[in-house]
Parts: sequence; structure tokens; C-alpha cells
Amino acid sequence: MAVNLHIPTQDSIHPVAGIEIGIAEAGIRKANRKDVTLFRLAPNTAVAGVFTQNRFRAAPVQVCEAHLASGQSIAALVVNTGNANAGTGASGLAASQKTCEAVASLLQLTPQQVLPFSTGVILEPLPVDRLIDALPQAIDNLRPDNWFNAAHSIMTTDTQPKIVSRQLTLQGHTITITGISKGAGMIKPNMATMLGYLATDAGLAPELLREVTQDLANQSFNRITVDGDTSTNDSFIVMATGQSGLQVDNRQHPAFAPLIQALTEAAVELAQKIVRDAEGATKFITINVEQAQSSEEALKVAYAVAHSPLVKTAFYASDPNLGRILAAIGYAGVTDLDVSKVNLWLGDVLVASEGQRHPQYEEADGQRVMKEAEISMRIALGRGDASETVYTCDFSHEYVSINADYRS
Amino acid sequence: MAVNLHIPTQDSIHPVAGIEIGIAEAGIRKANRKDVTLFRLAPNTAVAGVFTQNRFRAAPVQVCEAHLASGQSIAALVVNTGNANAGTGASGLAASQKTCEAVASLLQLTPQQVLPFSTGVILEPLPVDRLIDALPQAIDNLRPDNWFNAAHSIMTTDTQPKIVSRQLTLQGHTITITGISKGAGMIKPNMATMLGYLATDAGLAPELLREVTQDLANQSFNRITVDGDTSTNDSFIVMATGQSGLQVDNRQHPAFAPLIQALTEAAVELAQKIVRDAEGATKFITINVEQAQSSEEALKVAYAVAHSPLVKTAFYASDPNLGRILAAIGYAGVTDLDVSKVNLWLGDVLVASEGQRHPQYEEADGQRVMKEAEISMRIALGRGDASETVYTCDFSHEYVSINADYRS
Repeated sequence: MAVNLHIPTQDSIHPVAGIEIGIAEAGIRKANRKDVTLFRLAPNTAVAGVFTQNRFRAAPVQVCEAHLASGQSIAALVVNTGNANAGTGASGLAASQKTCEAVASLLQLTPQQVLPFSTGVILEPLPVDRLIDALPQAIDNLRPDNWFNAAHSIMTTDTQPKIVSRQLTLQGHTITITGISKGAGMIKPNMATMLGYLATDAGLAPELLREVTQDLANQSFNRITVDGDTSTNDSFIVMATGQSGLQVDNRQHPAFAPLIQALTEAAVELAQKIVRDAEGATKFITINVEQAQSSEEALKVAYAVAHSPLVKTAFYASDPNLGRILAAIGYAGVTDLDVSKVNLWLGDVLVASEGQRHPQYEEADGQRVMKEAEISMRIALGRGDASETVYTCDFSHEYVSINADYRS
Repeated sequence: MAVNLHIPTQDSIHPVAGIEIGIAEAGIRKANRKDVTLFRLAPNTAVAGVFTQNRFRAAPVQVCEAHLASGQSIAALVVNTGNANAGTGASGLAASQKTCEAVASLLQLTPQQVLPFSTGVILEPLPVDRLIDALPQAIDNLRPDNWFNAAHSIMTTDTQPKIVSRQLTLQGHTITITGISKGAGMIKPNMATMLGYLATDAGLAPELLREVTQDLANQSFNRITVDGDTSTNDSFIVMATGQSGLQVDNRQHPAFAPLIQALTEAAVELAQKIVRDAEGATKFITINVEQAQSSEEALKVAYAVAHSPLVKTAFYASDPNLGRILAAIGYAGVTDLDVSKVNLWLGDVLVASEGQRHPQYEEADGQRVMKEAEISMRIALGRGDASETVYTCDFSHEYVSINADYRS
């Protein structure tokens, strides 16, 4: 079902010097399934993260935040699928901590140097002993070229692995950027049921990496939405090993701008892949809102349109029932919106001008755009200079089927 | 598909003295379909209305508001289905005004004494001449006992007519309350794609009726949600003819409280019928949020749960995947929520206590409640004394089918 989701060949994935990945079968929820992924990071790798804003933050998210705040250098990441360890209270926290202790003991680290991640069903106890028993198996196969396998082993309802990899030359250094993500439903800004791991062998000063990671998230994972549901476990981690020899310690460094540009493109691609593989999606939709008074206002309108079940089902049906888009703009919460200044384009077709059906608009033109698998929509509010772009998908029978049957 | 939607027999519908209703076939969108409904009100009937908060207010909504504000006594209502006359700009406004002028001319009123209503497809021009041509036919069959037929003639995607009727004795007067509503999708507070007309032969002072109408809306039509979409045309009208002889001019009148109680019950029932007939609904769900710091906060949490596609699909599947409810509570926007104080009941089953799975909770108990057609959920936030109740439904394959095919 995935919409134009490009899966690179295994050969085209560049390992990131300083990062090894091991994979294991722990039987967390189902047998014979790779459900544990371990990252080992070379010393001096800078690591930063952005996490869910859901108040029911899962235990591993709480532990991640504490360990990142401890000031100790992060040296390992451990990810399990099958169980989110969320809504599990004190015993869930203890399970995440126990996992970190076990990884630390096997890799000769402190528990604070380990970040735990869980994704899967909420409100059920994590079978932590099975997870820990599988760790030696993961350590046994730690390899730099396991990114493709890792993209598979972190999947839950995903139908396709999500992986990006690119190289560029900066200041005479060949720089690698490789990342993976997972997530297919319960996707909303700030953030999705998603895990994203982006790594580079460029070096970035830890404080700078923290700032950059938030910016990257805001351009990518915080701009995708499938169904408006924000999960308890969302995590986006950026790792900079420095093994390429290039070290960027401030924004004035000549390599800073091109490096961030490349990281942003990789993060956007990873995030878009989640929408392309969204549960039941048949269309990939880009919503651009411009001429808003503020970025916040532009996002409000973009999300109102992106979350409208009526708009999403109309896209599914390729039905240019575009009044539904106007209705969503109207209820987005811009209370002083002058609708007579609103223009709406679907692809290159001007559908509505000055708040009403454009005189030259023909339904056949709207229909032509709606039938494409990649659809872009532009909404001009006529109020200011701010603009924002959000990525979403349509809403199909299949979405209902998947989510009605997820646990059965 | 409707969930426990009681349709009273035609005999049990009490006409409201002072109100006659006529119905016609104008062929607005489809031939051989009753699509025009005309209400004629006796002189001195007090009329008040609450309208959509969508910024794209349809032309008839704008005309209604202007005519209600003109101070002239409202004497007729004209409703068409098949076309919403929304997103139609100046020509749409002219069409609504022309409709009022035609009704006024035929009934010897001023145009300001007529309220127009339209519901149907957005962004297409209203075939106003066909509407006007049908008015004599509607006037020809003006009758007090046409409520049941009117409940049918205002339907769009509704599968069932929605009508309530009751009588009570106040101060020795037999008081009648009868109302109809329509709406099945694009339903959200403030308000739904809904039209609601509630009439009584009690008399209410105009200013008091205006206040009461807003209160009634807040207890009923502003507490239902199907898909989070708010339409351009929502209107709720309350009419008090005074023909019973009972006149209530202030809140101290001994009949005020029982009259409002009866009107509220009728409005809640009319609103709930819309959810019961919601597109594709198989379950009727009542969400009660209590121990909130404010009514606004309680509503925020209730709507987050009610709008979550993941929660709604889980209800459709009778799958007690109740972590999805906790996740929705967590992202509702109560930024300082202490999740360790949150309790959640499904029916009489305590599912989560202190923010985690209740130790005695058994999935079989959750499953038992989920399988019912009427489900109630109680969420206690442990923060204060405010509470609110919202009514919604589940999310099924059928919802997608209906909305993907609406115009075809």
C-alpha cells in the first residue's frame, strides 16, 4: 500500500563510522521475529534527542531524558518492538532501567550511558527478562553494515523498512549520513508513534547538536500527520560520531550550513517515508499554507485540513469535493480570518479565489489532480508572510481495518 | 446502521400551536425528492438561533444572523437540502436574499421576517430559481401536523428521521415541545453539519429565549462529535409561539425551570439522535470527564478522546485496546497533567488507576463492555471539580465508504 516509498538497495546504504548495530529475537510479543536492536557508539559520539509531548510519556522516554540529562556520554541504544512499556507506572520504569543496566553490564558502561526505546502495545507489562536474555545475541552480531536489517527490526505495523543514506564532501572529508525510522499510524506532530535514528560521521559539539536536533525535528517529524494521534513513545535521536575527521563546533564553521542542509533533507525524507507507509494510505499529500500572520497560524490551518476525516476520505475517493477543504480552513481557529481573501490551489489548479469557487474552475481539472498519488495543495490566507508545510495522507477502508485488528 | 435511534410513531408527534409546515419538491440536486421545507409561524412567536462558528459561514447563515438582528419578528423559515450555498460569495448571498424575498412576497411579510437554511454540497451555486418555483407547492400544503414529514424532508446523508415530541403540564397549561434535527457527518461542537428546530407553544420573552437558546445548544448540539469536522451551515433554532397561554418572561417565573428542563431534554435527545445516526456508527459512546480544573479543560480531554481515530476504530472492533484512551488523554493539551492521578472506567470496569493498568483489571471485563452498543466511559483527572459530558460514536469502514462516495 505504501505510496512511492523508495527502498534503497542494501548496497547503497553507507555504514557510519563509529556505529555498530546488533539485532536479536527476544520473543517480546511474537516468536521468530527480530524485535531487539542494539546500537553501540564509538567514544565521543555526540547524541541528542527529541521526545513525545504526550503527558503519558512511556517509561523508556522518561529514562532516555534522564540519561541524556546526566551528562554522561551516550554509548549504546537499545530498541524493542512488540511492547511500548507505556502506562506501566513504577514497574515499567524499573523494567527500562533494568534493561539499561543489563546492556551496561555486557558492554562495560554505566547504565546512564544507555538509551532505551520501546514501541508496540500500550498498557501491558514489558517482558523484560526475555529482552535481557536476548542481549548477548544482539551483541554477538554487532556490525557496522546492519542498518538495513535494523530498519526491518524496528518495524511494527510498517509495511516497508524506512532508510535513507547519502554522502557528501565537506572540507575535503567524505561525510556519511544514514538513518532509519519506523511508524505508520498514531502519527501527529510533537510527535508520532515513531522512532527515528539519524547518524553521521561528522562531529558536532554536543550543545550545538542539541539545538540542531530540535530544528531537524521541527522540519521533519514534527510536520507529518496521519491521524492526529500522538503516541506515548515517540523519539528522534541524532548521533554524530566525528569519525570522519570533520568537527563542527559552531554555526560559523563553513561546513555547518551544508551539513545541516544534508541532515535536514535526510530527516525530511525519513519522516515522509512514515506518511508514505501510513496505515492504509493511497495518496501522499503536501499541504502548504502561506500568507499567514505567524508560523503557528499557518500550522493551525494546515493541521485542520490534514486531520479532517472528510478531506481525507475525499482524497481517498479522488473526489474533488473541495468545499470540505474550505470548511476545514474555516474551523481551524483563526477567529478573525477574512475568508474573502483566501485562495486555494490543488496542484496547479486555482480552485477557490477570494473565498469562493473560482469562476474558471472546472471539476475535471480538480479531478485530474485528485487522481494522482502525489498531491500538493496550496492555501493562501492573505494575512501575512508566514508559511508552513505539512505532510499527510488520505484515509481509507484499510486504515479502519488495520486499526480495528491491530491486536488480534 | 443507526444505534438505538428511536423513531416515534407519527401519532405520537404533537403539533405545536402556532406553527405550520409545508413541504415541496424543487429538484435542487435530485429529482423526485422532497427538498424544501417551509415553516410559517404565528404572529408574536419568539425566535432565537445559534449558528456555526466556522469562518466560512454559508450565505444563509449570514442572512439568518442579519435578519435576527434586524429586530423584526420572524414569521417564516425556509430550508433546502441538496446544496449548502456555502463558498458561493456575493452571488450566494444574493440567492439567499432572493429566497427570503420570494417567501415574503408569497406570505405577505418583509424579507427580514424570513430565515433561510441550506444544507448539502459546498462550493456549488444554489439553483435559486428552482427553489423559488417550488415555494407555492410548499405553501399549498402548510399544515400543523407536518413535523414527521419535515423530519424526512430536511435529511441529507441521514438514514433515519430525527424527531422528538413531548408534553408537560405547567401552571395548568398543557405545554408541547416538538423538534426535528438532521445531520450525520461533519459533526463537531460549535457546531455540526446539522440543522435543529425546536418549538414550543409556551411563550418566552425574546431576550430570555436568546439566552436560553445558547444554553440549550451548549448542553446538546455543542456536545456531540462524530468526526471533528464543523460545517459552514450549522443552525439551531428555538421557537416559542406562546399559543398555549403560558408566558414566561423571566427566570424567576415558577414555570421557567421545568420548562427549560424539558426543552433541554428534548434538545439533548435531538442532538444524540444525530450521533446515533452518524455515518457508519455502530456504537453510541458517552464520555464523561470529571475532576478537571475547568469546564474547558474537561472538554479538551473529552474531545481528544472522542476525536481519536485510534480510539474510535478500537471501539468499532470491540477491542479493549485501552492504552489508546490514555494516549489521547495525554496529548489533549493539559500540559501540567499529573498522569499518576488519572483513573479510567469503561462502563463499571476500573481499567486504569493512578495512570496505569489497574491491578485487578481483566481484559475480559473490558471486552464485555466494548461489545455493547451503548458504551460509557468515565475519566477522572484528579485535579478539580469541573466535569463535562460529550457524545460520540465509533469509526467504521462504512464511514469511509459514505464519505468517499457522498457526491457520486
